[in-house]
Amino acid sequence: MNERMRHAVRQATEAGLDGLLITPGPDLVYLTGHRPPVTERLTMLLLLAGVPGPAPTTKPALVVPALELPGDQPDLEVVAWPDGEDPYAIVAGRLRDGRHAISDSAWAMHLIALQEAAPGVRYTSMTATLPMLRAVKDEAEVALLAAAGAAADATYEQILSVRFAGRTERQVAADLARLLREHGHEQVDFTIVASGPNGANPHHDIGDRVLREGDMVVLDFGGLKDGYGSDTTRTVHVGPPSAPEQEVFDVVRAAQQAAFEAVRPGVACQEIDRVARQLIEDAGYGEFFIHRTGHGIGLTTHEPPYLVRGEERPLVPGMCFSIEPGIYLPGRFGVRIEDIVTVTETGGRRLNTTGHGLAIVG
Amino acid sequence: MNERMRHAVRQATEAGLDGLLITPGPDLVYLTGHRPPVTERLTMLLLLAGVPGPAPTTKPALVVPALELPGDQPDLEVVAWPDGEDPYAIVAGRLRDGRHAISDSAWAMHLIALQEAAPGVRYTSMTATLPMLRAVKDEAEVALLAAAGAAADATYEQILSVRFAGRTERQVAADLARLLREHGHEQVDFTIVASGPNGANPHHDIGDRVLREGDMVVLDFGGLKDGYGSDTTRTVHVGPPSAPEQEVFDVVRAAQQAAFEAVRPGVACQEIDRVARQLIEDAGYGEFFIHRTGHGIGLTTHEPPYLVRGEERPLVPGMCFSIEPGIYLPGRFGVRIEDIVTVTETGGRRLNTTGHGLAIVG
Repeated sequence: MNERMRHAVRQATEAGLDGLLITPGPDLVYLTGHRPPVTERLTMLLLLAGVPGPAPTTKPALVVPALELPGDQPDLEVVAWPDGEDPYAIVAGRLRDGRHAISDSAWAMHLIALQEAAPGVRYTSMTATLPMLRAVKDEAEVALLAAAGAAADATYEQILSVRFAGRTERQVAADLARLLREHGHEQVDFTIVASGPNGANPHHDIGDRVLREGDMVVLDFGGLKDGYGSDTTRTVHVGPPSAPEQEVFDVVRAAQQAAFEAVRPGVACQEIDRVARQLIEDAGYGEFFIHRTGHGIGLTTHEPPYLVRGEERPLVPGMCFSIEPGIYLPGRFGVRIEDIVTVTETGGRRLNTTGHGLAIVG
Repeated sequence: MNERMRHAVRQATEAGLDGLLITPGPDLVYLTGHRPPVTERLTMLLLLAGVPGPAPTTKPALVVPALELPGDQPDLEVVAWPDGEDPYAIVAGRLRDGRHAISDSAWAMHLIALQEAAPGVRYTSMTATLPMLRAVKDEAEVALLAAAGAAADATYEQILSVRFAGRTERQVAADLARLLREHGHEQVDFTIVASGPNGANPHHDIGDRVLREGDMVVLDFGGLKDGYGSDTTRTVHVGPPSAPEQEVFDVVRAAQQAAFEAVRPGVACQEIDRVARQLIEDAGYGEFFIHRTGHGIGLTTHEPPYLVRGEERPLVPGMCFSIEPGIYLPGRFGVRIEDIVTVTETGGRRLNTTGHGLAIVG
């Protein structure tokens, strides 16, 4: 059992769990490095917990389709099931009755079959029970996130010189995707180009609106580079902004900065949200900041910790998350500025380092 | 309610279901065209069923995060929930007790929360209850699958002229991915290059093995073009094959052809598998054909119908699936040949049309 598995078993035991059921995706990558395809065929890592003291010395079982045998896994007992055999019976035969947490993104199809095969087991989700399992990154992970952030930064620097006016959101988004790939992203998850009134919808993706002089344009883009996420937002303007546009922009910029400066170990996650929100409220735009201030990032682009009201857990060195306040004025425009930030021993460090000024594009 | 929703409600009612719970992914695209991101925020379409006769005239509800409001959805009642509200309580308040099928890939996190919020509802998976919901494609869908197949075919034609000998599997796989994108794929799902002994593992993906003269090489690649899947396999040889290699290849080729010729409406899915398997068994290689003969394809690259022993449902015109027999000789090499095939009124039509001969590459 490797160190991450031992850590997971300890955390699970402290949380009153009897085991963890890990399916393909970020939890499995984190614990084993194994990246099988996500398919209708069940793959599941079984980590038994619930016994205080040192972690057990027996190897955790990885139940896998015989067609998808993983490479060398010295820490695991690989249990292969051939097409035609019932993988749920195999898993059920290895579980004790009791409470188990299952990966958030495990397929409902698999969970339902397991509930039928092991009716004495109670299930909870990782996010409900162990939300912070992957939240504190080690040095190697922070370095990977910094490299993904640097690639996103290089993308932003280069997008500033493409043509905006007269082209569609979709065309600029294609440029962003191409640049992210050129800078080493193996996966592009989102390339939001939200121009003019479209910017007032914080999750507007892209459309066929043609950009024109006078548009505020929210660019929010990211994906995975070497397995770790990038996610950055800059708001640019086609030609010079109006005074009211600049004013709104400056409020968001100040909120992002204030939230960043509030980052240090021991501060509650919700405090970062409160600081950004307070500043925007004080400027009179509180009702137009309609989402949480940030989310964790790592092997996925959205994960705990969430910087949101009610999240009382403290920041811990190594946590990595977005700080992304925004103001959205219906029918007019939106502004959002987002950096990935990591918690250090003394404060915060930005993993996106391009300037926060309102860039003018052509 | 559109025609696909009415069809789904009819099928659900006939299957004894009281409703369908559809989450982002292929089911939701199929029924609504809506493609929201898959996130920790619940999006769910509720289709009530269980009342025989005409489908109800009330609009189905689409429960969505307020941040992710869909575009125009005249067939739906859009129920938006803001950050901080409990979406599971909203869904639970609209469900009758009774049996509901939920999308296969719905997140376990969402299902568990819903089970707690609506304890009187019983859940089953779409695959367990309505596996054939999306299996019969309409003309427009077959045309999209044919276009995706043609793009994969163009990729194959061009990969034949790249250098194989002296380059790694990973490098050839990158060529395949690039070509698929150049031919219009927005998503590349797999680019398997399994050379020499690696070919004996049917799900070997890629590695750093350097290809060399004398290698049999399995190329299995596909993804999504305009939302519909491609998936094709050709086996090529670096330089001339040996007589035993050619013999194994010819058996697989004959099995693929025989299985294709067995396709016609009314034949059981498992019969296509049986025909391919019989031919390979008769040639003495039965123990080395270690997977099912095929799987459906559409909005995903793996879906019902499955051509596998035990699947007694009949082929219906419009079904689209792979036919992909293979022989895997441990420590030596593998051969697989795969086309996507659609069922017509009188037989089958291939959606991959490149030649089946053993191409020699350099």
